[in-house]
Amino acid sequence: MSHGKLRVESFSLSIDGFGAGPSQSLENPLGLGGMELHKWFFPTNTFQKMVFGKEGGTGIDDDIAAKGFENIGAHVMGRNMFGPVRGAWPDDSWKGWWGDNPPYHTPVFVLTHHAREPLEMEGGTTFYFVTGGIHEALERARDAAGTRDIRLSGGVSAIRQYLEAGLVDEMHLAISPTLLGSGENLFHGIDLSALGYRCTEHVPTQAATHVVIGRA
Amino acid sequence: MSHGKLRVESFSLSIDGFGAGPSQSLENPLGLGGMELHKWFFPTNTFQKMVFGKEGGTGIDDDIAAKGFENIGAHVMGRNMFGPVRGAWPDDSWKGWWGDNPPYHTPVFVLTHHAREPLEMEGGTTFYFVTGGIHEALERARDAAGTRDIRLSGGVSAIRQYLEAGLVDEMHLAISPTLLGSGENLFHGIDLSALGYRCTEHVPTQAATHVVIGRA
Repeated sequence: MSHGKLRVESFSLSIDGFGAGPSQSLENPLGLGGMELHKWFFPTNTFQKMVFGKEGGTGIDDDIAAKGFENIGAHVMGRNMFGPVRGAWPDDSWKGWWGDNPPYHTPVFVLTHHAREPLEMEGGTTFYFVTGGIHEALERARDAAGTRDIRLSGGVSAIRQYLEAGLVDEMHLAISPTLLGSGENLFHGIDLSALGYRCTEHVPTQAATHVVIGRA
Repeated sequence: MSHGKLRVESFSLSIDGFGAGPSQSLENPLGLGGMELHKWFFPTNTFQKMVFGKEGGTGIDDDIAAKGFENIGAHVMGRNMFGPVRGAWPDDSWKGWWGDNPPYHTPVFVLTHHAREPLEMEGGTTFYFVTGGIHEALERARDAAGTRDIRLSGGVSAIRQYLEAGLVDEMHLAISPTLLGSGENLFHGIDLSALGYRCTEHVPTQAATHVVIGRA
């Protein structure tokens, strides 16, 4: 059985290449200034529907955001994207940022060094905690997704690891007109050209510059 | 007398933050892949007129390119932008990339560790070789420019030095839809937010995403 793609979708970056600001915390999960990165996304119908159950804006930004949710059979994310807890899990009380019904609706494989029982949420999302590294997480996500694609949700560190291993098939970045100055840099020390990637699509809007990085 | 601004104009960057590709040489002055960065600029009327004396394309990209030449009384550039010669000048035969009539038409202050006599070209361009560092070069450029602005032409290393010293007043970047993977990175290790800069303008086109970084 041929498997689906590993896709990064709607991943927002600053002009200077940061996917999150410095000093991430419970109060500032995206780091200082990190909310600015996602300004293009918040007004979209895709975001408004998902989070508030309301109509939002349509147009190119929304089309692109919506496409990121199509044909996804599983998600992979880094542990720091799942939550602010570091080190061993003190208990099972942290259940992600997203409430009882997270916006994934598929199995989600969370990269961590610390084992934890699977966590079943409402709406079809189950978090599985994978301690065997990025290859194991991808393999389990592929088993779960079947012929559908896998969305690599982030954060920066998880995406960098999959890029360096040459495992990302497509990466949509939304470059926002803001500077962060410091934080987690997506590109630093990764030679995407040498890894065989190039820019395959370019769709600028007033809110963000959308680019797709792929192997085509 | 109040002096003009120090401006970076039409400086092209890859998505991954490189202002020039790797392996710069006489044959590849912009480094491998570096020509891709400037694809937005070549078709413009500004470039076509300047280089070929022909009409070129008009529109936003051209308007922005043209603006970069307005009210400029002097230029500052790094030595590697002036030419491929490294170390001591073997003789005075290298006169820049631009032929007898370079597109500067003002005094140009070239940062170098190696003294050399001023070089007067046609059309009002004179290259002065400054061995006293970035502050001396800027001071001399200000004396030459009077109330007009100074254009900091590049390359990456010269711009980084002026940014780190907080001396750049405005920086227009054109982010091109291409990856370079390696080369000279404009942002790496510079915290522009901490230096007081932010994104003050954002004008996307099909060819490039134009942003202005300033202190406003």
